[in-house]
Amino acid sequence: MKIEKTSHSRIRKMNFKNIDFGNQYSDHMFCSEFKNGKWKNSIIKPFGKIMFSPISLVFHYGQAVFEGMKAYKDKNEEVFLFRPEENLKRINRSAARLEMPTIPENIFMIGLKNLINIDRDWVPKYYGQSLYIRPFLIATNGALSAKPSQDYMFIIISAPADTYYKHPLKIKIEEKYSRSASGGIGFTKAAGNYASSFYPTRLANEKGFDQILWTDSSTHTMIEESGTMNVFFHLKNKLITPKFNDNILGGITCKSILSLAEKEGFFVEERNISVSEIIEGLQTGELREAFGCGTAVVINYFKTISYKENNFDLPNLSEKERISLYFKKRLLDIQHNLSEDPFGWRVQLKRYF
Amino acid sequence: MKIEKTSHSRIRKMNFKNIDFGNQYSDHMFCSEFKNGKWKNSIIKPFGKIMFSPISLVFHYGQAVFEGMKAYKDKNEEVFLFRPEENLKRINRSAARLEMPTIPENIFMIGLKNLINIDRDWVPKYYGQSLYIRPFLIATNGALSAKPSQDYMFIIISAPADTYYKHPLKIKIEEKYSRSASGGIGFTKAAGNYASSFYPTRLANEKGFDQILWTDSSTHTMIEESGTMNVFFHLKNKLITPKFNDNILGGITCKSILSLAEKEGFFVEERNISVSEIIEGLQTGELREAFGCGTAVVINYFKTISYKENNFDLPNLSEKERISLYFKKRLLDIQHNLSEDPFGWRVQLKRYF
Repeated sequence: MKIEKTSHSRIRKMNFKNIDFGNQYSDHMFCSEFKNGKWKNSIIKPFGKIMFSPISLVFHYGQAVFEGMKAYKDKNEEVFLFRPEENLKRINRSAARLEMPTIPENIFMIGLKNLINIDRDWVPKYYGQSLYIRPFLIATNGALSAKPSQDYMFIIISAPADTYYKHPLKIKIEEKYSRSASGGIGFTKAAGNYASSFYPTRLANEKGFDQILWTDSSTHTMIEESGTMNVFFHLKNKLITPKFNDNILGGITCKSILSLAEKEGFFVEERNISVSEIIEGLQTGELREAFGCGTAVVINYFKTISYKENNFDLPNLSEKERISLYFKKRLLDIQHNLSEDPFGWRVQLKRYF
Repeated sequence: MKIEKTSHSRIRKMNFKNIDFGNQYSDHMFCSEFKNGKWKNSIIKPFGKIMFSPISLVFHYGQAVFEGMKAYKDKNEEVFLFRPEENLKRINRSAARLEMPTIPENIFMIGLKNLINIDRDWVPKYYGQSLYIRPFLIATNGALSAKPSQDYMFIIISAPADTYYKHPLKIKIEEKYSRSASGGIGFTKAAGNYASSFYPTRLANEKGFDQILWTDSSTHTMIEESGTMNVFFHLKNKLITPKFNDNILGGITCKSILSLAEKEGFFVEERNISVSEIIEGLQTGELREAFGCGTAVVINYFKTISYKENNFDLPNLSEKERISLYFKKRLLDIQHNLSEDPFGWRVQLKRYF
């Protein structure tokens, strides 16, 4: 792998006390090309623009998949990734569904680890902060026929991140629009799944909601996931979450919460969850908490759930009473190397440079 | 609008007798940028690579919509577009659903007409050939939050085209995978709709089928559209086609066939069409013809329709008996200025240059 280090680091302009997520990127990026059936030209180089042919298939037929992951610092400023092998597995599941080449483990891992090592000063050091890492795979060359591209580019970029939502969320259960279809690609992190959600999300935002709680496209009676988050409900002393299916993204944070909860003796169920069950729980008070989870948000609890123009407020618990905040702390403590790591999720970056 | 003409035309390398569609592009492209809420920097320049930021939202969240349209020549080598205002309306419907800015009529039309005029030598002159034109709108800058981009680029490129499929099609009625969901974006020409179809289409190809006939994602009992084509059935002396809904792309070729057929006294129905109705028609022989239509394919009739592993062959009609070939000729005659244009669909390009 070739490495071209920048001679003009932008890190002095970075204000870690007030991180403007997504508007400041670390100094370098990793790129690798897939051509003639082979991966080649792996390089770490200064973050910057890339030349693309206007017939690149990503522009026309949407062959684009991505991942979201984070690097954390501990008190000694050692840097840790969190379950990166899960991101590799998932991007390859997404790629296969979209007829894109899978990414070999060595290209993904060596690219990722070297990139974050070179940019380790960009990993913020405070609790809850992280370096958000965005690996993505896109079709580069192509033709105008609606057929998979022959050429692809795998890129990794990163950006310092703080908390995503800073307040409890108001959520609307969707009754009209859909995120994905049974037999479709809702389980993948395909770029096309996101643009389709912007319009219904804006409509929800305009009515005062932070996010949509997506339901099945056929009947709108079954809960799927929320925008960029899987969801959990603390209902009748159980922690329940919709069972992954081909409409639901298999979230790594979600899976991690399930593992922690089971290990710690919580009664956990992954199963189909109906809207009516949740509404009933809101009405009876048996729904104690509801929360979303994902790499970007970590965990964020819901304040209000709306259905058919009725707003239902969730119980006004103290912070100590909240199972959501308990798991958020458990996860962050593991991620920041402040607690044991019973499942071996942390991957420490060795200092190569 | 700025015009930078190429000093190295590639047209001498173009072999119009054996057009390799999608691998040879005309000399120029049109670009216009949307920044700070305004369209600017419209330019016609030599076809070539463009610089994009790696955070361009098209790579991450799939804000990308496109159109397909064609320019034709008549015997005097005058160039005609076919219903370009319909493409403008449709790309703007697609853009609105994906929270992208709509394209003003003057930018779309002036860009299009000037571009095709400059590249008019690239419009092939034989009957059935055309210059395929690809306008597309993509999100350029962005941030890593899942929110619409602020910046966009509208681009038009073109490529000489011949007949898309050269043989009658074998079609498989899909029972597992889905193209789109009710409440989703199937009615748009969003890039993301296409990548999701590649995998199921490959599975169909491997079983010997040319294309999939998509059904509704909830029950797989209702006919929607075929890959890159709307579909028509000549059943019990009626010409029927699935009524456009939010799962079905509103095809301009489809609409044009409906208009022609109605004017010429055919009994036409746009309505919901069930799989069972089609299978029954195949079994009784009352389904006389089935065909797909679209800008790329024009019209192509089906030879075989497969359902639940049973192959049903359609009646082996002569060319003269085929309503599909009748309408194909009617359309091509209008497009090539060989017949009257009762609906005013042709738009002749004035020679500016």
